[in-house]
Amino acid sequence: MRQKKISDYNIAIGDFPTGKLNKITDVTGVLVGHSTLSNEINQTGITVIKPHPDNTFESKVIAATYVINGFGKSTGLLQVDELGTIETPIVLTNTLSVGTAYTSIVEYMLNNNPNIGITDGTVNPIIMECNDGYLNTIRNLSIKNKHISEAIDCASDEFLEGAFGAGTGMSCFGLKGGIGSSSRVIEIDDKSYVLGSLVLSNFGKREDLMVNGQFIGKEIPKADDNCLPKTEQGSIIIVLATDIPLMPSQLKRIAKRASVGISRTGGHIGHGSGEIVIAFTTKNQIKHHNESALSSIEVIHYDYLDKIFNMAIESVEESILNSMITAKETTGFMNHKRCSLKDYISLYKNREARI
Amino acid sequence: MRQKKISDYNIAIGDFPTGKLNKITDVTGVLVGHSTLSNEINQTGITVIKPHPDNTFESKVIAATYVINGFGKSTGLLQVDELGTIETPIVLTNTLSVGTAYTSIVEYMLNNNPNIGITDGTVNPIIMECNDGYLNTIRNLSIKNKHISEAIDCASDEFLEGAFGAGTGMSCFGLKGGIGSSSRVIEIDDKSYVLGSLVLSNFGKREDLMVNGQFIGKEIPKADDNCLPKTEQGSIIIVLATDIPLMPSQLKRIAKRASVGISRTGGHIGHGSGEIVIAFTTKNQIKHHNESALSSIEVIHYDYLDKIFNMAIESVEESILNSMITAKETTGFMNHKRCSLKDYISLYKNREARI
Amino acid sequence: MRQKKISDYNIAIGDFPTGKLNKITDVTGVLVGHSTLSNEINQTGITVIKPHPDNTFESKVIAATYVINGFGKSTGLLQVDELGTIETPIVLTNTLSVGTAYTSIVEYMLNNNPNIGITDGTVNPIIMECNDGYLNTIRNLSIKNKHISEAIDCASDEFLEGAFGAGTGMSCFGLKGGIGSSSRVIEIDDKSYVLGSLVLSNFGKREDLMVNGQFIGKEIPKADDNCLPKTEQGSIIIVLATDIPLMPSQLKRIAKRASVGISRTGGHIGHGSGEIVIAFTTKNQIKHHNESALSSIEVIHYDYLDKIFNMAIESVEESILNSMITAKETTGFMNHKRCSLKDYISLYKNREARI
Amino acid sequence: MRQKKISDYNIAIGDFPTGKLNKITDVTGVLVGHSTLSNEINQTGITVIKPHPDNTFESKVIAATYVINGFGKSTGLLQVDELGTIETPIVLTNTLSVGTAYTSIVEYMLNNNPNIGITDGTVNPIIMECNDGYLNTIRNLSIKNKHISEAIDCASDEFLEGAFGAGTGMSCFGLKGGIGSSSRVIEIDDKSYVLGSLVLSNFGKREDLMVNGQFIGKEIPKADDNCLPKTEQGSIIIVLATDIPLMPSQLKRIAKRASVGISRTGGHIGHGSGEIVIAFTTKNQIKHHNESALSSIEVIHYDYLDKIFNMAIESVEESILNSMITAKETTGFMNHKRCSLKDYISLYKNREARI
Repeated sequence: MRQKKISDYNIAIGDFPTGKLNKITDVTGVLVGHSTLSNEINQTGITVIKPHPDNTFESKVIAATYVINGFGKSTGLLQVDELGTIETPIVLTNTLSVGTAYTSIVEYMLNNNPNIGITDGTVNPIIMECNDGYLNTIRNLSIKNKHISEAIDCASDEFLEGAFGAGTGMSCFGLKGGIGSSSRVIEIDDKSYVLGSLVLSNFGKREDLMVNGQFIGKEIPKADDNCLPKTEQGSIIIVLATDIPLMPSQLKRIAKRASVGISRTGGHIGHGSGEIVIAFTTKNQIKHHNESALSSIEVIHYDYLDKIFNMAIESVEESILNSMITAKETTGFMNHKRCSLKDYISLYKNREARI
Repeated sequence: MRQKKISDYNIAIGDFPTGKLNKITDVTGVLVGHSTLSNEINQTGITVIKPHPDNTFESKVIAATYVINGFGKSTGLLQVDELGTIETPIVLTNTLSVGTAYTSIVEYMLNNNPNIGITDGTVNPIIMECNDGYLNTIRNLSIKNKHISEAIDCASDEFLEGAFGAGTGMSCFGLKGGIGSSSRVIEIDDKSYVLGSLVLSNFGKREDLMVNGQFIGKEIPKADDNCLPKTEQGSIIIVLATDIPLMPSQLKRIAKRASVGISRTGGHIGHGSGEIVIAFTTKNQIKHHNESALSSIEVIHYDYLDKIFNMAIESVEESILNSMITAKETTGFMNHKRCSLKDYISLYKNREARI
Repeated sequence: MRQKKISDYNIAIGDFPTGKLNKITDVTGVLVGHSTLSNEINQTGITVIKPHPDNTFESKVIAATYVINGFGKSTGLLQVDELGTIETPIVLTNTLSVGTAYTSIVEYMLNNNPNIGITDGTVNPIIMECNDGYLNTIRNLSIKNKHISEAIDCASDEFLEGAFGAGTGMSCFGLKGGIGSSSRVIEIDDKSYVLGSLVLSNFGKREDLMVNGQFIGKEIPKADDNCLPKTEQGSIIIVLATDIPLMPSQLKRIAKRASVGISRTGGHIGHGSGEIVIAFTTKNQIKHHNESALSSIEVIHYDYLDKIFNMAIESVEESILNSMITAKETTGFMNHKRCSLKDYISLYKNREARI
Repeated sequence: MRQKKISDYNIAIGDFPTGKLNKITDVTGVLVGHSTLSNEINQTGITVIKPHPDNTFESKVIAATYVINGFGKSTGLLQVDELGTIETPIVLTNTLSVGTAYTSIVEYMLNNNPNIGITDGTVNPIIMECNDGYLNTIRNLSIKNKHISEAIDCASDEFLEGAFGAGTGMSCFGLKGGIGSSSRVIEIDDKSYVLGSLVLSNFGKREDLMVNGQFIGKEIPKADDNCLPKTEQGSIIIVLATDIPLMPSQLKRIAKRASVGISRTGGHIGHGSGEIVIAFTTKNQIKHHNESALSSIEVIHYDYLDKIFNMAIESVEESILNSMITAKETTGFMNHKRCSLKDYISLYKNREARI
């Protein structure tokens, strides 16, 4: 059964048409898989994004990152910034499991690339995280190698949003957050291109939530959250994928616009928030073993970037709302509870949407 | 007669109380002056912000910059980033007059500091700009040295907003933009501190304008703008001032939050937009001629930054709206016309503000 | 028995006096510990730098990072850049063991801080690495949790340089590299301050090696290295410590000067080199649980930075040479061998040192 | 008469062959022109680098910048960083004349592009500077519009080095500095490519000067410089040009390597030094008025960057030495005098060069 997304509540974010699935996997080749731990003690998991179905070490995708706020522990960004390429799947998980995910990706890459560490240098795992310690017993370090393998193995173009995978224990605007996704389509020179986003949402204060311009957060009753961390430890990870041909410097500019999408939902880039964006294009892949010194790549003229910026902004705004509207009410660590946006979305006055 | 600001239309942006004037000059010592050229050919001018009334070269203010989008020609940012200090007044003007303003500030500083260029090194003028070429005959280079002198001489804590000084010819969301300002007040350990902002607004598309969450831009009739530049050449300059004791690295983080304020008005960081923030504190000034190697400065603990971020976001959002609501309808170059937000603010449904 | 350092060969790098031990641990409170794996299969290990002997989570040190070249996999830099603090020991190891070290530091911090993950947010492990795959069977992932614990437990102000800890399997300029350290002392206002450095050296081509201005690399016979990785995968990690009172923005500038020290040894910032600097001061520590909003810190006037830059440059240049001159000839993976600089240092014409 | 360059003294910097002129103008299309003011009061001037002979606004070159130390007042870098293109000639001059040069370039571009400021947006002048106040009466602001015009008009592939143009009043390592240039050639896939550099040298302390590894600065008698500015106000501007096809992100990495060339001459990135690099390629030019959304560009595989890095390092090291060895002894402001390296180059022990 298809999950109900924000657009199913008659709330249309922005002007661009969406892709077929309205997910990041509308970008051909991109695959997403989850491994979910949800029981009395653990509310956590793994989400993997594969930039394409083949060996990413042999055929790297052009990429860029943008750090909105660096209170975060993601690994691998340094090298993406330097080289402009991603060479592993991207793994999302909880903050304290970054090390385990790193080692699992190392093992996965070693298994698939017998020359890594011998004639081919090492490998740069991209692990990104949020702190799910409000709902998850994060000190347990319950994520194991098998969860990463499982998420990689089941990666597909269909995947669940909300409280699944890395999103299992996340909170957003004092409600249940998690995994959300959406996509936007554009025609350029008679050809169709897609830009999609996937977010792991775990940020924001209830009273700040804004849905398509309406400040509904102020109307949502305050939850009993007397056990909250002293400082906000929220975060959001944003993955952008596209099949538009772009250089790393252009992708970095697109990644930056994700921050506008966050602002439109009521985020204010909190001090304690790790807000990190990673963006890649499946076009113009770079071979690890090049055949010739020079190669020809297609790039888009910068006059066209404005539209692509808007695609990214709309997609991120909608992905955040999708992460909340698809996530079910969840109870976890120390009986902490997060309600679902589903139960409050009626506060949105539909007739006035984008007037 | 006091100008009507956005709050006079019963639109309250955010939660913090405003300072006495609701202007950047609520930060004690900060002074603002204009020189305005408004006639059949020219719609342009100069706005000067003095960080304090005394010699800024002798006593520098701690500062930081943040570039939201670098399609801009501001000077001096490089050195502010490296050293964390501002040593001249900040000048705002049109893009093609940056050189003239630079030379004028050099002359002003030489006059007041006989040792610059001899025993005291050189000086770093901060000139920031937007392109007012839609209303102003910008190719005329009509700004002269005397306009900068005039703006410096008349700098005061009272100043006009809207179509004055550098704001004379600016456009914002397809309406008249210009100079806007506001301030926010906070109590920390029983002491009151102010953070104020001043913007030079010149960005955005009519249909994107958002006032306190309402998409009123879509309801404003489209102006006759068939002579518009092919690519958006809009921009926004944001000056933040405060008396809270901060290090440069903390100021940079505050400066970054200005982008959220822009997003809340409907901005999307356009490709062709020069969106630049400069922030300073009047506390902890640095003497050019130090007496001792080590000195003691006060700094705020990072747990308090979140509130200061929110002050900046609210203040910038309101300053942009103030720049529009105070600006009168203006006709200029090639009979181009920009209407005032005043004439459309009734589209805002007041009863629902921040529900 | 004291190890012979480069100065014991009558080669004096620069002009500043060295500290008592001529090591990073001349900065009071800084401790260094190793765990070494050296056998037929493994030539690798762990080196830990503790910024001070107490709980670094409770009392964080002011810090900054600088990325000379980002072909590296270090973790934790993002947050140091954002907040300007370090809150864990710094761990050095091989590239593929970063995940294991990350998890070990998480466990160590959880054990010592019962509120992490509950009321105190999470923790930001600083793991830095080079690829020792030429001498070490790096695909074995032989580093385990116990090695990190061992290195932490034995941290002291006395520690070995060369082929120990993380330095066990490293190569530098085609010779044996590893851990090297040195320090410089300055008097400011009649008080003595120290700046020390520790490097993990693993970069450079034999023919580029330069000792105190002499190009001796060109005279060293070429080793049999037909099994070398196709692209240079070398790197250098540099840790700078000082007791001079500094703000994060000043520390970042000091960190940047480490690159000059590298250049002076013949490095050219290779494409495949992860050259990362982390710098901290033991002054002005930041409490996790602050008592008041505002606190007073001492900072140095920027006129004094030039001398501190020179201390950093000299210390890094010497630390690299120390890492080589103290490292013994080593044979490892696939019978690869790295000779010691000791066996070639006579190529240096002593009488001409810094003429 | 050809000027004697450092290679004419039998001092060979590095391993790559040089281009035909051993100047930046070995890159086809690059032109350099000077305007020199040398009299009893003024020792200053203008140097212009044209990236290609045609309209740079219509056909922009791909570019990047790198700030080694930001104590400088260059304009235009912001936009080069954002867009990755240069659209005007690059002007070098003294610090206080930046405004005049900016306005002159605006006027030059307006004259040649009737649509700037009307339908074509504005223009981004690249003005770069050093402080020549030791030899030049910099407070006089003696540079006028005509000097910029003159330098543009006489731009050619032949140009003088040393005390000409912007180099007229510059100092380097306590000796006479100024304009220096050199180039390096590489074969890639059977085709020949050039990378050239031009420096405006104005940095360093006498005792730090290093020529090809020899510390000859310590042997040069100290000049009578009791009127020196209190803090070092030196700087170096570096322009890199090439015809290798590169993306902006690759050019930025190459620009960074210029710092290694500086280090090899004895520079230590002084606190008061504005050390700025701008790099461009004449390949893959970007049209202001694009015909199609997508275009195809050639790029080099990253495995080849290491060699290009070395070309840049060698070329910058040699350009600095060329700027000194070609510059004649000069006396200026307040009878300050700078001797020429020519008079001390015999301190270099030729037989030992790169042993």
